[in-house]
Amino acid sequence: MTQAGGAQTGGAQAAAPEGADPAASVLAAIRFDANGLVPAIAQQHDTGEVLMMAWMNPDSIRETLATARVCYYSRSRGGLWRKGETSGQTQHLRELRVDCDGDTLLLLVQQDGVACHTGRRSCFFRAARDGDLVEIAAPEVSPEALYGQAGCGHPHG
Amino acid sequence: MTQAGGAQTGGAQAAAPEGADPAASVLAAIRFDANGLVPAIAQQHDTGEVLMMAWMNPDSIRETLATARVCYYSRSRGGLWRKGETSGQTQHLRELRVDCDGDTLLLLVQQDGVACHTGRRSCFFRAARDGDLVEIAAPEVSPEALYGQAGCGHPHG
Repeated sequence: MTQAGGAQTGGAQAAAPEGADPAASVLAAIRFDANGLVPAIAQQHDTGEVLMMAWMNPDSIRETLATARVCYYSRSRGGLWRKGETSGQTQHLRELRVDCDGDTLLLLVQQDGVACHTGRRSCFFRAARDGDLVEIAAPEVSPEALYGQAGCGHPHG
Repeated sequence: MTQAGGAQTGGAQAAAPEGADPAASVLAAIRFDANGLVPAIAQQHDTGEVLMMAWMNPDSIRETLATARVCYYSRSRGGLWRKGETSGQTQHLRELRVDCDGDTLLLLVQQDGVACHTGRRSCFFRAARDGDLVEIAAPEVSPEALYGQAGCGHPHG
């Protein structure tokens, strides 16, 4: 199965033998958008907390299924984004699900530490209340501790 | 606040008085994509089950906040999509959350009946296992019961 996608493949772990892509059946069920991407929701597998949403391309899905560590596609960087490779906040895949029309993924994960680059467990820490957005969760760790003094987290590009 | 968007507004309930848009603060925090849309994840508020993902535009967000009934924007129909208006499977909004970079919404809802047009509670009923996708949930109601003999459900376009 040939898919468009400018990113490099994810190294030896994600490479399949010639003619035998172990992710072929899963990829065939996914309807990638005009940019070759599909949105993926990450949910903590046991508590049900929705942690974040980011994007995947075929190569990131292959790598995620092969390694059981979640790898997204960064739209801002234009390449594979191995969640936690800078911060250590890895997502371990427990199950990948595909929705009814194949255009959204749900990743059940074990999140090491925090998912959000702000240091919060979930990226969805602002709630609409009485017409305003209010913060409903505080950082559990400082961005500096996650990314060094530059404090340069990675939004979901 | 003026936003591009071809859809009609959602009727009297969603209309704000001149010069006083009650959703202005929330809308200002949202980064809509090039099509003027933002993805919205619907999660059952008490069980944590992720039900579906669909898209919203400013008018659908205004209507949802004003009525507490979830209204999406249908990309395929090019207009507002009041969840449940055909099937009766309404989503009652408990809370709207915005993620850290403002490009994804999380809707905590009380789902009447089933969320999926296939008659399943959640749209994420297929899981990748051993290289294949397997169905992990059966329909709770037939599509014909939801949409009549035409069985014409509404995917998330």
